[in-house]
Amino acid sequence: MNYYPEPIRRLIQSFAKLPGIGEKTAERLAMHVLKAPRTEAERLARSLIDMKDKIRLCSTCFGLSEGETCSLCADPGRDHTILCVVEQPADMIAIEKSGAYRGLYHILQGALSPIDGIGPDNLRIAELIRRIRSESVREIILATSTSVEGESTASFLRELLKDFPVRITRIASGVPMGGDLKYVDQVTLKRAMDCRHDM
Amino acid sequence: MNYYPEPIRRLIQSFAKLPGIGEKTAERLAMHVLKAPRTEAERLARSLIDMKDKIRLCSTCFGLSEGETCSLCADPGRDHTILCVVEQPADMIAIEKSGAYRGLYHILQGALSPIDGIGPDNLRIAELIRRIRSESVREIILATSTSVEGESTASFLRELLKDFPVRITRIASGVPMGGDLKYVDQVTLKRAMDCRHDM
Repeated sequence: MNYYPEPIRRLIQSFAKLPGIGEKTAERLAMHVLKAPRTEAERLARSLIDMKDKIRLCSTCFGLSEGETCSLCADPGRDHTILCVVEQPADMIAIEKSGAYRGLYHILQGALSPIDGIGPDNLRIAELIRRIRSESVREIILATSTSVEGESTASFLRELLKDFPVRITRIASGVPMGGDLKYVDQVTLKRAMDCRHDM
Repeated sequence: MNYYPEPIRRLIQSFAKLPGIGEKTAERLAMHVLKAPRTEAERLARSLIDMKDKIRLCSTCFGLSEGETCSLCADPGRDHTILCVVEQPADMIAIEKSGAYRGLYHILQGALSPIDGIGPDNLRIAELIRRIRSESVREIILATSTSVEGESTASFLRELLKDFPVRITRIASGVPMGGDLKYVDQVTLKRAMDCRHDM
């Protein structure tokens, strides 16, 4: 590292702070920026600051948004009577990419995890209940992850929402599509057997 | 990509322009920056611009430098009578990391490549000759790469410098240390046989 002039060293250190970027890769990236046109470096620098300035959470669903309300919540073409409850914005994007869903989302901003001190008050659960009360929701899909925390968050919500006049569903879990049974872990296989359905 | 708000999309695109960063990785990096403290994004943005503003080529050796003269050329502790000729600043840094060399460098800023239209006038060869004339140089180590272009650049310089009262050497090439002979390519093995020495 001491072989580089100070400004390059600082850039290498900044790159190396990113996840999955080691010092070697950071050096390669810095060398690329050094050779690249100034506009490319400026564009990256500006996008970084821009994103930090402009992105906030949608006041309705708590997904990523540029304005007060995100483009999904504002879209009249989506089915406003179904809410898909996920943990993180990235989960919502994964579901969107699948193209399998045309309703709205509610992003909890985490999952229940007593060991990390995350209880119901730290998640957007009160806001979810407010939405169910004020909007004409007829189905809530619990799409928290299948980790211990995600599963217990789903159970907690199932219990909490049981008296509301809404259908509550949970995304299916089982063997991934295209998966080879011999590489699937035992917990998943057990779940796949337990949840088998007629065909 | 359309699942993200515009500022995130732009950051993903900027990250994806970096070498070895595909769209998936760019998404992961953008999501990291989104969650990271603002200072981290600012530091990376500032380092990018800073490096572009502050780094220039040393007026003596054409290596990377913060000022008019780089720290190596200005260091009285280095042997100013040996010049190691390399193609790129990165080559100089690789040699510095090896710790095997205490002289100065001369960075050609490329190698001869007629197919890409790079001739002697496009490289810092005139400046090299000026240095040999004006400084008390007693040895030139040709450390251009062992590619076709690097080899021909070395031959060209060997020829060009033959009448100067300096010793001209070429870095050794052969089997890499720790290398298994069966994985070494044939050209390298041939070179290693041709250049064998008494021990």
